[in-house]
Amino acid sequence: MSASTVEAAANGFQITGKTRVLGILADPVAHVKAPPRINQIALDRGRDAVIVPFHVAPDDLPALVSALRLMKNFDGAIVTVPHKGAMVNLCERISDEARVVGAVNIIRREDDGSLVGDVLDGRGFVAGLAAAGIEPAGKRVHLTGAGGAASAVAFSLARAGIAALTLANRSRDKAAALRGRLAEIYPALSVVLGSYDPSGHDLVVNGTSLGMRDGDPLPLDAARLTPGMIVAEVVMEPALTPLLALAGRCGCTLHFGKPMLDHQLELMADFLKL
Amino acid sequence: MSASTVEAAANGFQITGKTRVLGILADPVAHVKAPPRINQIALDRGRDAVIVPFHVAPDDLPALVSALRLMKNFDGAIVTVPHKGAMVNLCERISDEARVVGAVNIIRREDDGSLVGDVLDGRGFVAGLAAAGIEPAGKRVHLTGAGGAASAVAFSLARAGIAALTLANRSRDKAAALRGRLAEIYPALSVVLGSYDPSGHDLVVNGTSLGMRDGDPLPLDAARLTPGMIVAEVVMEPALTPLLALAGRCGCTLHFGKPMLDHQLELMADFLKL
Repeated sequence: MSASTVEAAANGFQITGKTRVLGILADPVAHVKAPPRINQIALDRGRDAVIVPFHVAPDDLPALVSALRLMKNFDGAIVTVPHKGAMVNLCERISDEARVVGAVNIIRREDDGSLVGDVLDGRGFVAGLAAAGIEPAGKRVHLTGAGGAASAVAFSLARAGIAALTLANRSRDKAAALRGRLAEIYPALSVVLGSYDPSGHDLVVNGTSLGMRDGDPLPLDAARLTPGMIVAEVVMEPALTPLLALAGRCGCTLHFGKPMLDHQLELMADFLKL
Repeated sequence: MSASTVEAAANGFQITGKTRVLGILADPVAHVKAPPRINQIALDRGRDAVIVPFHVAPDDLPALVSALRLMKNFDGAIVTVPHKGAMVNLCERISDEARVVGAVNIIRREDDGSLVGDVLDGRGFVAGLAAAGIEPAGKRVHLTGAGGAASAVAFSLARAGIAALTLANRSRDKAAALRGRLAEIYPALSVVLGSYDPSGHDLVVNGTSLGMRDGDPLPLDAARLTPGMIVAEVVMEPALTPLLALAGRCGCTLHFGKPMLDHQLELMADFLKL
């Protein structure tokens, strides 16, 4: 046994016939960041499991997922772009949140081969807030966006017990549809369709991709931000979006986009029973 | 990044989205020995690839193999018990040797998703002989057995240029069938159906599983071994079979079963383009 094998074994990175297998379903797949971090979590938790990339085109996803049910040492997968929507219909069971958000970003294979799906984007966002000492319960929240990320954030904030939610979105119909889906699960929550003016809210969240590219318009009326507001991003890159830069100059508390992913990895590991 | 991640990265064991994926198809799978050794070879060769176990039942093999064709970062798999025979009919192309042996123990996925199969047991055996300084070319060989392992060994010895082959087997029909299949590919090779008496041969090979279990009969008439003969095993466990123990007392050169596997791993890595 060479020195590097000994070291790898000491690190727990030795893959054997007993190792449980996890995947990350994506197309393309080369850029995905989760594998080394999930493998590190498995190692830290003393689990003999490894996650590897599964590169599959959208047309081939159903056949591959069917076959993965048959792999007895396959325990589940992270699901990412462009497969999150399609995966909703490929699971035997999905969470209420995944159903209403219309996306699955993680699947677990049960012993009988059935697949259970969930979406953890929103819970990662809330866990990131909590780790920064920000408790959503009781807060009045202004959320821009009504797409996948904004929907996931809205459901998780509702679950976390916010007092009220204002939705601002370019398409008012889409925001109304999100309000309707929220009402199915959280009928007591006050949700209004509002403007881009965040006045009167405690927590202001950008749930769109605006800020990712140079020249993007601001996602909301940043001139109406006031000191004491918490301003949060789902955009991870750049870390300091134009919105956050303006919010910082206003004396707002800033919450960056990256903690949503960081905290989601632990939640994913929990869901996968690592 | 924790210390162990840094070490793992330094070892080359960091799995990322770019890592190519290989499998080992088996049922059961927990006992397979190849993964750490193939991963070490990949590491030694500087390849960003990892082999993981794929546990699949015989009935589910066709569906899983079909789906693996669709996985764009899947490069191939080792195939072992009980799937070697079934895999013959699941590949787009197999080698002549795999066809006549009736077994595939390795598959490579080409860029177009098609699968190419081969059987490397016999070549591993011959490579192990070569590494021990034993050159089969020109030798008169006595081989006991006509099953999967013996067939693979027979074809590889024929390819390596042996002068003559005597087949001894409990079922003479099965030995005759092996002779017929050998004649398809190596029509010039002299193959006779003989007895268990190894007299007059240079290289004597046990190609059966006899010697693996306590109380097994000897695979051939060991009383007729003579000094100077090379006596070789396909049985790996125990290393010193009763046949080899007797051959050692006779002054024969011994060749153990394990080099067949050891050298096959390098051939497998070559076949998988690691």
